Amino acid sequence: MDGPVRQRSLWQHNLALVLGHVGTATPTSRAEIAATTGLTRATVSSLVEDLLRADLVAEVEPAPRTGAGRPATGLVLCPNGPTGLGLEINVDYLSAAVVDLTGAVRHHVVHRVDQRDRAPEQVLADVARMAAEAVGGVDLTVAAARLAVPGLVNGNGLVRVAPNLGWRDVDVRGPLTAAPHWPDLPVSVDNEANLGALGELAVAPASPSFLYVSGEVGIGAGVVLDGALFRGAHGWSGEIGHVTVAPDGLVCRCGARGCLEQYAGQEAITRAAGIGRDPALSADVAVATIVELASASDPGVLDALRGAGTALGIAAAGVVNVLDVDTVVLGGTFAALADWLGSHVERELRKRVLTAEWSPIGVRASALGASATVVGAAGSVLRDLRAAPASWVSVHR
Amino acid sequence: MDGPVRQRSLWQHNLALVLGHVGTATPTSRAEIAATTGLTRATVSSLVEDLLRADLVAEVEPAPRTGAGRPATGLVLCPNGPTGLGLEINVDYLSAAVVDLTGAVRHHVVHRVDQRDRAPEQVLADVARMAAEAVGGVDLTVAAARLAVPGLVNGNGLVRVAPNLGWRDVDVRGPLTAAPHWPDLPVSVDNEANLGALGELAVAPASPSFLYVSGEVGIGAGVVLDGALFRGAHGWSGEIGHVTVAPDGLVCRCGARGCLEQYAGQEAITRAAGIGRDPALSADVAVATIVELASASDPGVLDALRGAGTALGIAAAGVVNVLDVDTVVLGGTFAALADWLGSHVERELRKRVLTAEWSPIGVRASALGASATVVGAAGSVLRDLRAAPASWVSVHR
Repeated sequence: MDGPVRQRSLWQHNLALVLGHVGTATPTSRAEIAATTGLTRATVSSLVEDLLRADLVAEVEPAPRTGAGRPATGLVLCPNGPTGLGLEINVDYLSAAVVDLTGAVRHHVVHRVDQRDRAPEQVLADVARMAAEAVGGVDLTVAAARLAVPGLVNGNGLVRVAPNLGWRDVDVRGPLTAAPHWPDLPVSVDNEANLGALGELAVAPASPSFLYVSGEVGIGAGVVLDGALFRGAHGWSGEIGHVTVAPDGLVCRCGARGCLEQYAGQEAITRAAGIGRDPALSADVAVATIVELASASDPGVLDALRGAGTALGIAAAGVVNVLDVDTVVLGGTFAALADWLGSHVERELRKRVLTAEWSPIGVRASALGASATVVGAAGSVLRDLRAAPASWVSVHR
Repeated sequence: MDGPVRQRSLWQHNLALVLGHVGTATPTSRAEIAATTGLTRATVSSLVEDLLRADLVAEVEPAPRTGAGRPATGLVLCPNGPTGLGLEINVDYLSAAVVDLTGAVRHHVVHRVDQRDRAPEQVLADVARMAAEAVGGVDLTVAAARLAVPGLVNGNGLVRVAPNLGWRDVDVRGPLTAAPHWPDLPVSVDNEANLGALGELAVAPASPSFLYVSGEVGIGAGVVLDGALFRGAHGWSGEIGHVTVAPDGLVCRCGARGCLEQYAGQEAITRAAGIGRDPALSADVAVATIVELASASDPGVLDALRGAGTALGIAAAGVVNVLDVDTVVLGGTFAALADWLGSHVERELRKRVLTAEWSPIGVRASALGASATVVGAAGSVLRDLRAAPASWVSVHR
C-alpha cells in the first residue's frame, strides 16, 4: 500500500482479497467472506460475480444444514478455470506440467534426454513441442507458461549462464516463442531452484521462511522469506552450489576452490561412490543405483553420501546462521537421497548453528520430490494470477 | 495492504504517506505533496495540520520566488520534535546517543568499561544513569529508547545469549527500567549489528539490499533486503560470526569448529598480530595499535589483517552467493580497519561469487564508523515513529 487509495485500485485490491479468501478457506460462502474481510455483503456479491464470470471461482452445493436458515452456496477455486503451464530444462531431462487453480496436476511429462551435446535451439524446439502437446492434451485454458532453467536468468528471458548446460548469454524466450510448434502463450523464464521453492511453498510450506536446496548435476537454492521468494538485487539469489565449504579444496567449474557443488553435486556423489561418470549412465539411473546400493548398506556409497551430506550441512548451517530460517527442504535428486543425506545435514546444523539449542532446524525431503520445479513453475503462473486477478477478470468477465 | 480499507486506516495510511514524503523530499510544500501522492489539496492540508500540531513537521520560509504566484510555505521534518534515545552495551564500552527527526545527533557519550567481570545489574544500572544524563542533556522530548546488545535478543527484552559478555537468559528490560535513574521511557532491546545496519540504512544506504558486518570481539551482521532489516524466523538472523570458514579449524566459544569469529574477531586479529591479549589493553587501544602498526607496514600486523580479511571475504561470499546483495559494509572496528581488510574481502568476493563478473560487489566502511550501532538504535526509534505516526499524532496533536 504505497500510494493513495483510489476507486480502481480498491476494486483490484478487494478482488484479490476475496479470491485469496476463497483460496485459503475452501469451500467458503459470500457471508463468510464478508465477515472475515469486513467488506459489505453487497460488495462481496459483486466481486464474487466478477470472479464467477472469469472462471476463477465456482459455486458448489451448499454444505448440509447445521443450524437454522437457508444453507449458503459454497464457493471454491474453479477447477476448470485458467491453468498454468510449467516447462523445465535440466541437464539430463526436459519436463512439462499443467496445473489448475486448485493445485491439481492435469498433465505431466518427462523426457530423458541429455542437453550437454545439443545446441540451445534444438533443446528449445523440443520444449516448444512439449508445450504444444501439453496445451492440446488438456481441455482447459492455459493462462501462461513459465520455463525453469538451471542457471542465472535475467528478467527478459536471457540466460546469463547455466554452467552445467554449457550455456552463456543464451536468449531463451525469443527462439522458444519462434519455434514452429510453440502455442500462442506468454512465457517467462526463471531459475529452476526458485520455481522448486515456489512449488514447495504452494504445496507444503513447512514454515514461512525456509531454504529449498535443489540437487541436480549442479546445486541451486530457493530462499523463501516470510512467505515470499527472495530474488536478490539482480534476481540471482540462491547460488548455494558455489558457497565455499573448503577454502583450499577442489577447483569448481566456476573457477573458485571448494564450492559445495564439488562435494555434494550429483557427479561428486557418483564419483565418490566409485560409480564413476559413465557417459552412458544417465543421471536418473545413477541416482537409482545409489539408492539401491545405499539401501543395501554398501559402505562406499554410504561414505559418499556422508561426505555429501556433511558438505551440504556446512553450507546450510551458514545460511541458517545468517538468515534464521527454520527449515531446510531437500529437493531435486536430494529428495530421493534424503533418507541418507538428512541425518548428516541435521548433525552439521546442530553443531554449527548458534541458535540450534533453542530452536532445532527441521530437515525434510521436498513434498513434490523430483517434480517440484516443473509443478512449481506451472503453479507460480497461477500464484501470480491469484495475487493480481484484476487484468484477467477485466478481459474474461 | 492486507485487509479491507476503512476510514481510520485510510487516515493512518495517508498520514504516514505525507510524513514519508516530507522526509524524503525536503523542503517540500502542500502542493507538491498533493501532486506526488495524488491526494486532494484539502486532504493534504488537514494531514499537514495534524503533523504540525504533533511537532513532526515544521514550516520554513518559502524558497525564493522563481515563477509567478505566491511562493509556497516549505515543510520539513521538525528538528525540535520527538527524538530517539539509543543505548549500547558492548564488551568493552557503553554508549548513549540522542538523534532528532532530521537525523542530527544531539547527544553522544561513550564510556570505556569492560563488562566481562561485571554482573548484568551493574551494567544496566550504568546504562540507566547514562540514559538519564542523555534525557536531561537535551531540551527535547525523547519518544522512546532502544538498547543494543551484542547477542541473541528475544522480542520481550530477554537476552538469550551474548557469548562475549558471558550472558545467558538475562532479562535486560526489567532491571533496566527498575534501576534508580531510569527515565520514564518505553524501551526495546535489539541486536547490535541489526541496529548498526539500520543506522547505515538511514544515513548512507549503498543499495536497497546489503550485508552490514560488525566487528567487535564477536562478529555480527545485519541483513538488509529491499530496504528493510530481515530478522528471520525468531529474530536471530545475522550470526555471521558463526559461519564456518574452516570445517576442521579452531574451536569457537560456541562449541563449533572453524567459525569466522576465530579468524576475524578482534582477539583473533590481535593474537595473530602478536599483540597478544593483554587484559590491561582495552580494545580501542588494541585497534589503535593495529592501525598504527599497519600504517607503518608492520609485516606481522599486515599478515594478521590479510588472514582476517580473507576469512571475512569467504564468509561474505557465501552470503552474497545465496542472497545476491550487492554491497558489503564493514562496521564496528572493521570500519577502522577497512583500509587493510577491504582489498582481501574484495579479492575473495571476486573469486568466489558466481555472479561477480557481471556485477561486482561493493565493499566499503560504514559511514557512521564505530558509532553506527548507538546512532542506529536512536534513529530506529524515529524510523518506527515515522512509518506509523498515527498513535503519536493522536496523543500529541
